[in-house]
Amino acid sequence: MPASHPRLNARFNPLIEQLSLPPVPAVAAWGRAYDKALGPLIDLSQAVPGYPAHPDMLRLLGDAASSKAYTGYGPIEGETVLRTAYASHVAEVYGAALAEANIHITSGCNQAFVCAAMTVAGPGSTILMTEPFYFNHETTLAMMGIGTAFVPCSAENGFLPDLVSLEAAMTDGVKALALVSPNNPTGAIYPPSLLEAIFRLCQEKGIWLILDETYRDFLPQAGSRAHGLFSQSGWEETLISLYSFSKSFCIPGHRLGAITAGEAAIGQIAKIMDNLQICAPRAAQAAVAEALPLLTAWREENRQEIGRRAEALKTVMRSVSGWKLDAIGAYFAFVRHPFPGRGSAEVAEQLAKRAGISCIPGVYFGQGQDGYLRFAFANADVETIGLLEERLRNFSLS
Amino acid sequence: MPASHPRLNARFNPLIEQLSLPPVPAVAAWGRAYDKALGPLIDLSQAVPGYPAHPDMLRLLGDAASSKAYTGYGPIEGETVLRTAYASHVAEVYGAALAEANIHITSGCNQAFVCAAMTVAGPGSTILMTEPFYFNHETTLAMMGIGTAFVPCSAENGFLPDLVSLEAAMTDGVKALALVSPNNPTGAIYPPSLLEAIFRLCQEKGIWLILDETYRDFLPQAGSRAHGLFSQSGWEETLISLYSFSKSFCIPGHRLGAITAGEAAIGQIAKIMDNLQICAPRAAQAAVAEALPLLTAWREENRQEIGRRAEALKTVMRSVSGWKLDAIGAYFAFVRHPFPGRGSAEVAEQLAKRAGISCIPGVYFGQGQDGYLRFAFANADVETIGLLEERLRNFSLS
Repeated sequence: MPASHPRLNARFNPLIEQLSLPPVPAVAAWGRAYDKALGPLIDLSQAVPGYPAHPDMLRLLGDAASSKAYTGYGPIEGETVLRTAYASHVAEVYGAALAEANIHITSGCNQAFVCAAMTVAGPGSTILMTEPFYFNHETTLAMMGIGTAFVPCSAENGFLPDLVSLEAAMTDGVKALALVSPNNPTGAIYPPSLLEAIFRLCQEKGIWLILDETYRDFLPQAGSRAHGLFSQSGWEETLISLYSFSKSFCIPGHRLGAITAGEAAIGQIAKIMDNLQICAPRAAQAAVAEALPLLTAWREENRQEIGRRAEALKTVMRSVSGWKLDAIGAYFAFVRHPFPGRGSAEVAEQLAKRAGISCIPGVYFGQGQDGYLRFAFANADVETIGLLEERLRNFSLS
Repeated sequence: MPASHPRLNARFNPLIEQLSLPPVPAVAAWGRAYDKALGPLIDLSQAVPGYPAHPDMLRLLGDAASSKAYTGYGPIEGETVLRTAYASHVAEVYGAALAEANIHITSGCNQAFVCAAMTVAGPGSTILMTEPFYFNHETTLAMMGIGTAFVPCSAENGFLPDLVSLEAAMTDGVKALALVSPNNPTGAIYPPSLLEAIFRLCQEKGIWLILDETYRDFLPQAGSRAHGLFSQSGWEETLISLYSFSKSFCIPGHRLGAITAGEAAIGQIAKIMDNLQICAPRAAQAAVAEALPLLTAWREENRQEIGRRAEALKTVMRSVSGWKLDAIGAYFAFVRHPFPGRGSAEVAEQLAKRAGISCIPGVYFGQGQDGYLRFAFANADVETIGLLEERLRNFSLS
């Protein structure tokens, strides 16, 4: 190619060009290549609930979407009905004084993370994460030119970070620590006391704590409180909490998430959201505002059902030699595969194509994770999880 | 405050903290302060169609939203039904060979702009814009740390940029030129020959042309082709075209837009969208895919109706002395107010509060625009536009 003609690829933003491809579609392609010789594909790849939305949820979504009332632009921060309903809900969940002004509705929790990260860190700043990490958090920061630094977590510590490592990593230029609890990919549930100690450390260091609580509704103990951070003095200047309506209401396709933060932070986030997409889709907001009190019992049943799926997976993993369940929590299990020295991508690809088990290779979650696979067990019912036993036992790498 | 305690505001990302507040809510507050002494508020502030969505559109939205089929995650690039339907549509509109692979669905056209800008420019790069500009384009780039440079446009040239100024502004570090045609805020419609000359200039200079065509469906001539750029050789390496379903289908609250670009660019955009929000909301995509062929005649009627509104505004503006219609196009008029030396924000505030006319001050659209107001005339019917005459004639600044 003549030098005077700019190369096509040289003209994209290098931050985007260097970004790894979204893992989920790549993994889905492996699943499609499976010949169903052992029965249907068992899809443990994407973090979606394996049961349908409640009929009332669908009815409410349909009613709102067919209404003229939600065709126009809405408030940037979200519909008042949803902000107030969700504020009441989180006030109850955390036993804290939270109001509409503390809530910003977003189009899913990935967008909530984009907003939170951008609110506190610009290009050249750094956000600290735990490793293994949720891949979209890492790529989101990379695409915005925000630096990342990692605190490694391992099976020995239940994939929880220790305070000494966290503090050592809070160097100049670090604007925030981003955590996910219950964790993606490991499932690890951060104890309230650890979250509170981390919060105090962030407060002392003057950095933000961005806490992604997408899987909060699937804690193993009924009515257990994830943490007491919203009752800490000055929380508004340290904590930004993220949530997704996708998992609890089985509506990821409707793209709805929420941020809980101090009023000053919400004001900054609104400026970002106005540019990103003016406002989150309105009809689904109105529908979820009604569904929130209505589906309490149904959501509790689902929490219990996910718990049964976790127990089923534990039973399976005890009975297949070589495979090791290093962590399991609200939605995910982090599984050590029995092929040391072979890459997790190779294992996951063969597992999908030849054993009909679709999961995400550990390597997508950071360095040192190649011995692992992430099983999103919430996506399969107890009976299906039982089928894993034979498939895993008979599986060997070619 | 003790120096050891970090100031709250010092801890936000300065790029966000310095960002101006979204103008539309501020302007809406002025309108709410109007006492209705002269009759209902005439709202010419936000670019929304002043007529409701078609009943079939509402039915389709309701059907899709109440369906289980769209509750799960969808393809990042958009639903195949909408990508193919929209590709056929744009292929016809532009008389060009465009296919599903050229289309990426987004959650509104602001998000399409975010994706396009990020695809070609990172922090420290520059995107060239015309001035007056659409304020969200400017703030979007500012919040991402992308530099901006401006080519001034003025009434003498019909608010069209000239090629000499454009070329002079295409200095090192400029990665793209962002244009809006029909223009927001002026309404100026770029002639196909000008767009083609600008395209060739961008091609020669090796920079991208990001063309926001949100108001394309409201060109004054029936069936007129906005440009022939998609038929130019190598267009895929220069052009990224943006579109909104909000105006044509009267569904801004459902947040749906589209990008038309080369396959390589679509591939980069998918990586960004995956991080921004996984995928655009699905149910509305399915509904619009069906509505696209179904509502062709209705959309044509609306195009004609918007044309009648433009004529009505021209009639009004000829009859009020001092006020000058410097530009009018598909959706907007750029109006010179008769109070030289007084700021456009002051004029717009008093106009809203005392004369019940809500519009956007020129100052929000860039430097040197303080003599102007933007009238989004599409938002008011012919009869309402007629009411402007008396209100404007009797209006004086206090």
